[in-house]
Amino acid sequence: MKLKKVDLSFQSCTAEYKDADVVIFSVPMDATTSFRPGTRFAGNAVRVDSIGVEWYSPYRDMSLKDYKTSDVGDLDMPIGAVKECLDTIYDATKTILNDNKVPFMIGGEHLVTYPVLKAFKEKYDDLYVIHLDAHTDLREEFFGMEMSHATFMRQAHKFLGDHHIYQFGIRSGDKEEFEWAKKHIHQRKFDFEGLAEAVEFLKDKPVYITIDIDVLDPAVAPGTGTPEPGGMQYKDLIWAFEQFEKLNNLVGADLVELSPYLDPSGATNAVAAKTTREMVLLLHNALNKRK
Amino acid sequence: MKLKKVDLSFQSCTAEYKDADVVIFSVPMDATTSFRPGTRFAGNAVRVDSIGVEWYSPYRDMSLKDYKTSDVGDLDMPIGAVKECLDTIYDATKTILNDNKVPFMIGGEHLVTYPVLKAFKEKYDDLYVIHLDAHTDLREEFFGMEMSHATFMRQAHKFLGDHHIYQFGIRSGDKEEFEWAKKHIHQRKFDFEGLAEAVEFLKDKPVYITIDIDVLDPAVAPGTGTPEPGGMQYKDLIWAFEQFEKLNNLVGADLVELSPYLDPSGATNAVAAKTTREMVLLLHNALNKRK
Amino acid sequence: MKLKKVDLSFQSCTAEYKDADVVIFSVPMDATTSFRPGTRFAGNAVRVDSIGVEWYSPYRDMSLKDYKTSDVGDLDMPIGAVKECLDTIYDATKTILNDNKVPFMIGGEHLVTYPVLKAFKEKYDDLYVIHLDAHTDLREEFFGMEMSHATFMRQAHKFLGDHHIYQFGIRSGDKEEFEWAKKHIHQRKFDFEGLAEAVEFLKDKPVYITIDIDVLDPAVAPGTGTPEPGGMQYKDLIWAFEQFEKLNNLVGADLVELSPYLDPSGATNAVAAKTTREMVLLLHNALNKRK
Amino acid sequence: MKLKKVDLSFQSCTAEYKDADVVIFSVPMDATTSFRPGTRFAGNAVRVDSIGVEWYSPYRDMSLKDYKTSDVGDLDMPIGAVKECLDTIYDATKTILNDNKVPFMIGGEHLVTYPVLKAFKEKYDDLYVIHLDAHTDLREEFFGMEMSHATFMRQAHKFLGDHHIYQFGIRSGDKEEFEWAKKHIHQRKFDFEGLAEAVEFLKDKPVYITIDIDVLDPAVAPGTGTPEPGGMQYKDLIWAFEQFEKLNNLVGADLVELSPYLDPSGATNAVAAKTTREMVLLLHNALNKRK
Amino acid sequence: MKLKKVDLSFQSCTAEYKDADVVIFSVPMDATTSFRPGTRFAGNAVRVDSIGVEWYSPYRDMSLKDYKTSDVGDLDMPIGAVKECLDTIYDATKTILNDNKVPFMIGGEHLVTYPVLKAFKEKYDDLYVIHLDAHTDLREEFFGMEMSHATFMRQAHKFLGDHHIYQFGIRSGDKEEFEWAKKHIHQRKFDFEGLAEAVEFLKDKPVYITIDIDVLDPAVAPGTGTPEPGGMQYKDLIWAFEQFEKLNNLVGADLVELSPYLDPSGATNAVAAKTTREMVLLLHNALNKRK
Amino acid sequence: MKLKKVDLSFQSCTAEYKDADVVIFSVPMDATTSFRPGTRFAGNAVRVDSIGVEWYSPYRDMSLKDYKTSDVGDLDMPIGAVKECLDTIYDATKTILNDNKVPFMIGGEHLVTYPVLKAFKEKYDDLYVIHLDAHTDLREEFFGMEMSHATFMRQAHKFLGDHHIYQFGIRSGDKEEFEWAKKHIHQRKFDFEGLAEAVEFLKDKPVYITIDIDVLDPAVAPGTGTPEPGGMQYKDLIWAFEQFEKLNNLVGADLVELSPYLDPSGATNAVAAKTTREMVLLLHNALNKRK
Repeated sequence: MKLKKVDLSFQSCTAEYKDADVVIFSVPMDATTSFRPGTRFAGNAVRVDSIGVEWYSPYRDMSLKDYKTSDVGDLDMPIGAVKECLDTIYDATKTILNDNKVPFMIGGEHLVTYPVLKAFKEKYDDLYVIHLDAHTDLREEFFGMEMSHATFMRQAHKFLGDHHIYQFGIRSGDKEEFEWAKKHIHQRKFDFEGLAEAVEFLKDKPVYITIDIDVLDPAVAPGTGTPEPGGMQYKDLIWAFEQFEKLNNLVGADLVELSPYLDPSGATNAVAAKTTREMVLLLHNALNKRK
Repeated sequence: MKLKKVDLSFQSCTAEYKDADVVIFSVPMDATTSFRPGTRFAGNAVRVDSIGVEWYSPYRDMSLKDYKTSDVGDLDMPIGAVKECLDTIYDATKTILNDNKVPFMIGGEHLVTYPVLKAFKEKYDDLYVIHLDAHTDLREEFFGMEMSHATFMRQAHKFLGDHHIYQFGIRSGDKEEFEWAKKHIHQRKFDFEGLAEAVEFLKDKPVYITIDIDVLDPAVAPGTGTPEPGGMQYKDLIWAFEQFEKLNNLVGADLVELSPYLDPSGATNAVAAKTTREMVLLLHNALNKRK
Repeated sequence: MKLKKVDLSFQSCTAEYKDADVVIFSVPMDATTSFRPGTRFAGNAVRVDSIGVEWYSPYRDMSLKDYKTSDVGDLDMPIGAVKECLDTIYDATKTILNDNKVPFMIGGEHLVTYPVLKAFKEKYDDLYVIHLDAHTDLREEFFGMEMSHATFMRQAHKFLGDHHIYQFGIRSGDKEEFEWAKKHIHQRKFDFEGLAEAVEFLKDKPVYITIDIDVLDPAVAPGTGTPEPGGMQYKDLIWAFEQFEKLNNLVGADLVELSPYLDPSGATNAVAAKTTREMVLLLHNALNKRK
Repeated sequence: MKLKKVDLSFQSCTAEYKDADVVIFSVPMDATTSFRPGTRFAGNAVRVDSIGVEWYSPYRDMSLKDYKTSDVGDLDMPIGAVKECLDTIYDATKTILNDNKVPFMIGGEHLVTYPVLKAFKEKYDDLYVIHLDAHTDLREEFFGMEMSHATFMRQAHKFLGDHHIYQFGIRSGDKEEFEWAKKHIHQRKFDFEGLAEAVEFLKDKPVYITIDIDVLDPAVAPGTGTPEPGGMQYKDLIWAFEQFEKLNNLVGADLVELSPYLDPSGATNAVAAKTTREMVLLLHNALNKRK
Repeated sequence: MKLKKVDLSFQSCTAEYKDADVVIFSVPMDATTSFRPGTRFAGNAVRVDSIGVEWYSPYRDMSLKDYKTSDVGDLDMPIGAVKECLDTIYDATKTILNDNKVPFMIGGEHLVTYPVLKAFKEKYDDLYVIHLDAHTDLREEFFGMEMSHATFMRQAHKFLGDHHIYQFGIRSGDKEEFEWAKKHIHQRKFDFEGLAEAVEFLKDKPVYITIDIDVLDPAVAPGTGTPEPGGMQYKDLIWAFEQFEKLNNLVGADLVELSPYLDPSGATNAVAAKTTREMVLLLHNALNKRK
Repeated sequence: MKLKKVDLSFQSCTAEYKDADVVIFSVPMDATTSFRPGTRFAGNAVRVDSIGVEWYSPYRDMSLKDYKTSDVGDLDMPIGAVKECLDTIYDATKTILNDNKVPFMIGGEHLVTYPVLKAFKEKYDDLYVIHLDAHTDLREEFFGMEMSHATFMRQAHKFLGDHHIYQFGIRSGDKEEFEWAKKHIHQRKFDFEGLAEAVEFLKDKPVYITIDIDVLDPAVAPGTGTPEPGGMQYKDLIWAFEQFEKLNNLVGADLVELSPYLDPSGATNAVAAKTTREMVLLLHNALNKRK
């Protein structure tokens, strides 16, 4: 019997970093979470429970086994130092992009998407973002801070520019956020209506997709810091994946705000693991198209 | 720095009682609960978790910040003495109504609605009740008692009169209850069909709305004593709120049967907090119309 | 006061075995569960929580009180010895069938259905199986074993024959399983489309129904070993029950893969208890037709 | 294979009532619980989890298998009607005593002990009570009621008389209760000191033992309504059992205030199951002495 | 009936701020928590569950009812901004001290004690600190930050000076911390030995007591971020309280690191509520001595 | 920034297999568990939560950082096939022993120790076993099987021989097991008395230590399949570690029966992580002595 070091990569994503086309990394950061923290544990929770999800997707008719994906684990976060954490995420994303690989990030709170978008914008000048979420995340500041999981998309707008952000499923925020959104971004409240049309428009543009797990109804994903009733069913998300399949230039993606300890049933971990599989396959699918 | 006594009012409902238009109170009573008790903890659980819900509602385009609501907390319940508990609830409701304020109650088991309806009937002679629930609550008696969470609406019918009760979402009860309902009340089984028409009919009548959280599917609200599968989604409830907005004479409301400890994820608390916000805003909306 | 031994039969199913038309038994076996075990506790969890479900069904307009059902409890399982466990289940099923009674089994993992089908096939030569599940369960082998909860239906196919298995709701499996299914069974992916037509075709044939609780979305039934997001709502299952009412020759049924400790809210127990009530009533309904 | 009705008797206590020397019954009542209800579920939780405890006790060198014990299950409680509940408990106890059997009761809240003591006092004129508890339960009234889990022992004192109650482990109550206790009963605060001496004194007197599970530290038994830190270890309780073995006239006993859903680990159920085994064996042991 | 705003003060500590001798405040901060966050919820969890603890202490023979204590609730924390949070805590402590009141703080992570000690040092030049904890908290820095729950006492040493810190119960840390401690502070590993002697020495000196709830064994207080097995029993803490009663110049205290959601049984909340009662009474006791 | 594959080794035990002196492996097997399964998840749960334990031990004054330990993760278990599982464990142990490394195993159920002992016996002819456990595990057979977690030590005795097994802390079993033990092994019931003397006797003999986590009281380690009240405190186990330090020829060890999902507080994981650290350091300590 041959023994070697423990390998707890997500599902069958056991490629070495250098060989991989897609790279999974996770970010154990929840420093600016305003209600219930705990998203720092998401990455490893998804890894450990990923044995409960198959490598084959009957939705995509693709299998993780047939693609090269590396899982590099949790980034080291200097807990309590927000700026330094964001710098580390930015560096990791730059490294992956410079190595011509496609990143898939598992958050952490949603602020972790900000440095990723910054790194992507430097590579893709005309970057568009599809943002599935229950919350607007469009505050100018929050508790006096510019950088927070409630402000990150407003801050990202500063470099993404007007009309480059497409939000769907939004059902919580302050009045000012909704007003601001009308002028500067595409925002669909409450559901995914218009997503197919948006995808059609974005078909050949560089697109990054960020999924806040709380876009789903708390019935589907109770393991999240700020559950917001009235959300989407998982079948709606599967329908969204079908749309995403048409994006020829899908360049990166993330899944954030899973807080595993808040759902003792483990169902939210299963939601996150399945979503990770589908999104990683979608990233490979888009890579195939570009080859 | 100025320090003053702790204020754990629901969300931003921090008005003094004398200044308020709408008054929130909660009732820590679960004495006649037949299966799993624990609804006595609902009021404070909703208060503590209400920081997770925004004061602004994108559904109503209204904000709690713009209205005067006072939260007077749990009533003192003499535990184990059903009659005395009901008397206390009746007295509190009378006080609020006499002060020309609009009450919103957080239960407790559903029997707590009985004394509230009694007080309302004394003020509004032609009172109608919209009742969202999984269970009929129409037994003549239960375990030999007339007053129980399984009988309260049958008992209330004695003073409300025939055809003044509109039930929706009902999917559990004894055969006799369903038979009785056909003759004496409006009862819609399984879903909310006919709710829009009922609201149209009741538009100018004094209407009290009582929402048993178990009208929702246990997937949406598992934190309740007697979960009954096959219920409504939260989006259905949001649709119902839209209908309720048309009631010109909405005079009071409650939300009952939340049992917070039964849902360790806290999702049911979020459901209750959001529902409380929407219903309190609907009560203010109706007040505005009547001004 | 007359005292007698504790009776924890499911709901009001307190008939003696000899007097019963339908017999409930449960199987505390989860030996081949690949992810999270615990289905062995399903039977007694459903019994204890069955006081939360009414004996009357407004869906069927039938009451358990009006029919003779006996609950014989957990079979004795020699833990760890898979073959011996399956033999015991087979023997129990044979006994019940030989006594001209109709069995309803509560699993246990899904492998427990294999010996039941074997016993049924010996009585009903042209047996058809309706199989609601998230997973194909069609592997040729699993971890090197022929007998497993991931293989049982492939193994059962060996005696059931081609085109005698009707699967609905399937959304997880390996590519080979989906390919194999196309040739040998009726398989509907993702939902219940075609179920009404299948029931019409099977109307007069001997039909056994096996329900894996994970055919439901994990939102509805989180208490299961391998939650698979994107499943059915409970209202879909209620619709399926309506179809099943048309089966004139429904000869047996089971509900498997409930893992009660994984859902601390108890909602999944309620799902299982209500499903048990409906299925037991459907079995009585079919018996009535055949009388 | 022979099939018969499900038998969920505690462990191996499967004797018919008529044949038994000791009779277990449980009381699903928590109507006057002031903090967290849920003790109504104790009886069946102990039954279901009793398969985790051996029938043989290495402490007593006795086995449940060698004695005749019947488990008659939960008494029917008219929920919400305190007086009627107490009457039912009294009737059951009288029945068992009249049939010359020895009762062991599983509560329920501690008020359930009151009617049992009343029935015992009518049979044993010089009845003594050993009472292990964290709380005094000696209030004259509670929330205006004479009958409550916080008053039951003060009420029982009215017929038991001065100096017939021996309390140990008490660490919570109002000042007045502690003052009253000094004059009317034997009360040991905080621990079991003096228990051996008390047993020596009571050796030949008729003694009833009532154990509130919260006499144990919440570390040992967190599944209880009002956990009170600073309590006894389980080894202390085992030592107490050794003392109880010397009571020649131990005539009955109970274990109350287990609230199973409050301890998701199930450890408190194990504590209750083991305590039930030891106490039932102690009751048989005393019976043997009296034969 | 008179209605007024909800009052969720700890137990019966309902005095207005201006009238109070002792002031309870809580700090919802867990920004530098390295393992499992959640201590931000401690204050309100203790408030809500404080109805489970009596106002009378049989240990102190004192009652909260007889003393004036005000509970001013959670301080407002700018989430994610560590320095600003510490400044707010410092300001609150200064305010209370300037008003000649005695503060009792409920944390939050242990870093919250740092600004409190700073404020105390400015009032009490020769301040001594008794520190009960599992962890040394004596790192020079942690993840590159000077201010962290793992460094706070080392940082406080810089203004407290050598030999003014008395640690007990310490059982986790890095080797360097233990080495450093030997030279600069009094440190007792593993248990409370020497505490009586320390109290004797500190009898007339100004003493602040900070209790990390994880000084207790995780069996006693599992609801904490970094459980460290091998800790103290609650009876040991009660013994420590007895020693503290001898401190004539006890000037302030806190209880930190309760993470309520990590213990679903609520037992840790009970530990925190009882400890708060005892410590508040000890603060009043010392005030009495100084009058 | 340099990225490489995720490494979830226990704490800082990140050595490559070939470089290591001590090798950690885990066994996800719970096939013969009679009550509550789930120990299969122990290994990865301990890995993920090991960030909560320091690498330095103040008990041993040793640090994991100073030693070479490799963590090779979960062995692949063919679920449901008991014999094949045991063969795999045997092979892994043989491999490690042949490579002149010292194994530390994390179970799994206790049966996993059987093949390990078999492999050790082949290397160490006069092997002694110290066995800390609540249960005897000395049945001749269990449910008709020779190989079970309730029989493994009786089976191991067949090759270990009389008087080579030293049991401590035993408090549950059948009468026959206790009788058999008197003749064939050293068995201490209820506590660790005699452990120091046993260690003295075994000082220079090859000793394997197997620790069933349920030797601890369920208060300390509720996350285990069959909690048995009346067990040891963690301080007792620390005392045992001090004794073990004197064993000059400690050749291997394991920790079994952790069932992480049964303790939602995570305290049992902390117990297991700390015990693993101490035992791994003890194995290195013994290696040092032998060098």
